[in-house]
Amino acid sequence: MADSNFMPGCLTGVKVLDCTQFEAGTSCTQVLAWLGADVAKIENPATGDPGRRVGTNKPHQDDPYFLNYNSNKRSVCINLKEPRGLQIVKDMAAKADVFMENFAPGAIERLGLGYDVLSKINPRIIYGQVKGFGVGSPFEKNLAFDMIAQAAGGTMSITGEPNGPPLKPGPTLGDTGTGMLMCISILASLYKARDTGKGVRLNVGMQDAMLHYIRNSLAVTHKTQKPAPRAGAGSISGGNPPCNIFPCKPGGPNDYVYIYTSRANPEHWTRLCEVIGRKDLLTDPKFSTREARVENEAALEEIIAQWSRQHDKYEAMKLVGAAGIPAGALRDTHELVNDPDFEQRRVFQRIEHPNVGPFKALTFPVSFDGQKATIKPAPVLGADTNQTLADWLGYAPDRLAALTAEKIIGPAMKA
Amino acid sequence: MADSNFMPGCLTGVKVLDCTQFEAGTSCTQVLAWLGADVAKIENPATGDPGRRVGTNKPHQDDPYFLNYNSNKRSVCINLKEPRGLQIVKDMAAKADVFMENFAPGAIERLGLGYDVLSKINPRIIYGQVKGFGVGSPFEKNLAFDMIAQAAGGTMSITGEPNGPPLKPGPTLGDTGTGMLMCISILASLYKARDTGKGVRLNVGMQDAMLHYIRNSLAVTHKTQKPAPRAGAGSISGGNPPCNIFPCKPGGPNDYVYIYTSRANPEHWTRLCEVIGRKDLLTDPKFSTREARVENEAALEEIIAQWSRQHDKYEAMKLVGAAGIPAGALRDTHELVNDPDFEQRRVFQRIEHPNVGPFKALTFPVSFDGQKATIKPAPVLGADTNQTLADWLGYAPDRLAALTAEKIIGPAMKA
Repeated sequence: MADSNFMPGCLTGVKVLDCTQFEAGTSCTQVLAWLGADVAKIENPATGDPGRRVGTNKPHQDDPYFLNYNSNKRSVCINLKEPRGLQIVKDMAAKADVFMENFAPGAIERLGLGYDVLSKINPRIIYGQVKGFGVGSPFEKNLAFDMIAQAAGGTMSITGEPNGPPLKPGPTLGDTGTGMLMCISILASLYKARDTGKGVRLNVGMQDAMLHYIRNSLAVTHKTQKPAPRAGAGSISGGNPPCNIFPCKPGGPNDYVYIYTSRANPEHWTRLCEVIGRKDLLTDPKFSTREARVENEAALEEIIAQWSRQHDKYEAMKLVGAAGIPAGALRDTHELVNDPDFEQRRVFQRIEHPNVGPFKALTFPVSFDGQKATIKPAPVLGADTNQTLADWLGYAPDRLAALTAEKIIGPAMKA
Repeated sequence: MADSNFMPGCLTGVKVLDCTQFEAGTSCTQVLAWLGADVAKIENPATGDPGRRVGTNKPHQDDPYFLNYNSNKRSVCINLKEPRGLQIVKDMAAKADVFMENFAPGAIERLGLGYDVLSKINPRIIYGQVKGFGVGSPFEKNLAFDMIAQAAGGTMSITGEPNGPPLKPGPTLGDTGTGMLMCISILASLYKARDTGKGVRLNVGMQDAMLHYIRNSLAVTHKTQKPAPRAGAGSISGGNPPCNIFPCKPGGPNDYVYIYTSRANPEHWTRLCEVIGRKDLLTDPKFSTREARVENEAALEEIIAQWSRQHDKYEAMKLVGAAGIPAGALRDTHELVNDPDFEQRRVFQRIEHPNVGPFKALTFPVSFDGQKATIKPAPVLGADTNQTLADWLGYAPDRLAALTAEKIIGPAMKA
């Protein structure tokens, strides 16, 4: 009963003045848009968000990178180097519930849109900032991108083979992981502001945000007083084999199944021995206790691999999972994008983008009464300039035409 | 100006009935608690959340794992196998704004606390569920833990060396990453419920949530129609070297600096050549253009490594970062836990836990008007049973004593 027009509408009436670019900020405001806010993305008329050009050489086609973080927003082109352009943004700030930015340190203040300025114009504004490093950090003025945050925030140090170099986790946790914590803070502040009518300045360093996602490894350090190790595909906390990937047919680079027997659920191990037809292990002193399995982990993993190699990964997941043991086929992005399951459940939605064409876009994965937010394609640069200024500030067509002719706003809204 | 008693207080007055365990659910309700909600964690009187026992053999001491996800909550022990115990939880649901659970599929319904039941008792309840797989997925009934979600949700397939096996990202993105998306959904629903007075059933699959964090890799697949590759410490999107870790003095397992020159900011490359004393590279045809640097990436990385090996990672970060180039020392968890910077900024806070002793706890990394939420230690099992039932349901001392004597509630609140 998927409703192909469903919108959660939680934030209907909430106006977001969006000065974000790339990913850490845009991922945050995109979620607000999915949840129903009116998100007006302010872009410079010449090139817009540099994220539009990441990874592409096609000057008139937005990169999928941009599409992924800017669905359901409006694009408003305003020349901020013109005092009259800047004033328009300030007038929008007066109407906004939320302001969000992730420019380089100090840039928004130099532009004249710092918290001190905007909170005077609008004392109830919720003003969000994502930076590489937190306020007061020795690196406060440093630039950062996702990988810098992941290096400085510890996530790389715990990713890799036990005897290999640190590696970058594939997910862009430095960006989107931080953006989600800012989104939480904005929503909680919106809730509060309904009672108090007061705004707040929210600030997060991407480095600090990484710690939030590695607390199990921080717990290891608490216990050992050493750096948490790298654990390959296993668990950093360790201590309860099997907990790893096991090779499957036909042996491709991502043909593995993850199998995990939890310490908190000893029956996982019993069931696993049954599934792989090795109930003898239950009484084998080399494997009958958790301590013995830790001791003989390599031998145990080889026994399980002997079984897993006889199955493809989906079959292995089905057999192990159906027996009530946590198991997961290791899926690559091509398999995920092409699995009809995600489309049926509207996790992926096929959209037609004005200048990119057909695109499988990802929506917010949480369902609201069984329904997921409908994707509206990321806006073409400046497509919503006139309509937004009419909606937010009541500008009449002749005023918009004059501002466009003077290159204060633009490019003009597409017909 | 750090205020050692600061609380954001955004959710003052919001009651959360917390039936979560382990991490995916607990990380969500902990953030709600940091933001000011009254979070009553319902635990079975015998052992409580199995997360208390993860990784520890000490029966009367909670593991740091538990402490990390349950700060600022209350622990309420109720025997749910007793009809009268179950009724108490239903009475609490009538008073709650939010209900949250992450049991195995079907368990909460079997327990008699499904959405159908609780929404009749309290039509304005916001009912949140985290499961391994989304509703309608072929794996909907399967168990999952963090690593299963990371295998099935694609994050492992993009983590590892280009020619090596897939690896698990160190961060527990499957758990906390999913918990944060649920937290966002709860907060947005709370905002809406103030107008509508209506509740909602929120549900997220951990597998689906992983896609939210790998959108750049999905974009690679959109462009290549192939699985996104593994990229070691580099960037999956690629295309703009240098973008990697470089070895530093004294050569330990985490002695590296990350250096990145962004395609969107060509001056990063110019500045880097200056910092490493190699302005000759700017005119060297092997390195003068982006395309040439892609072609000669290995040679370029060796040139930068020759420079980085002469410095320790902090010095390297300082020199490169101060020149306006994104750079990050690669830090391990021991360095992070012991860096006084984080304590000064109250990212880490020293607390004294009743049965664990001194503990450096991590707070929510976002600052509110420059201040961060103060940690209250995770509760001892059942420590708040009586007080919470008095606060939420108005139970008098004699009623509490009788229920305790009959083992419907308990253990008794510690003096």
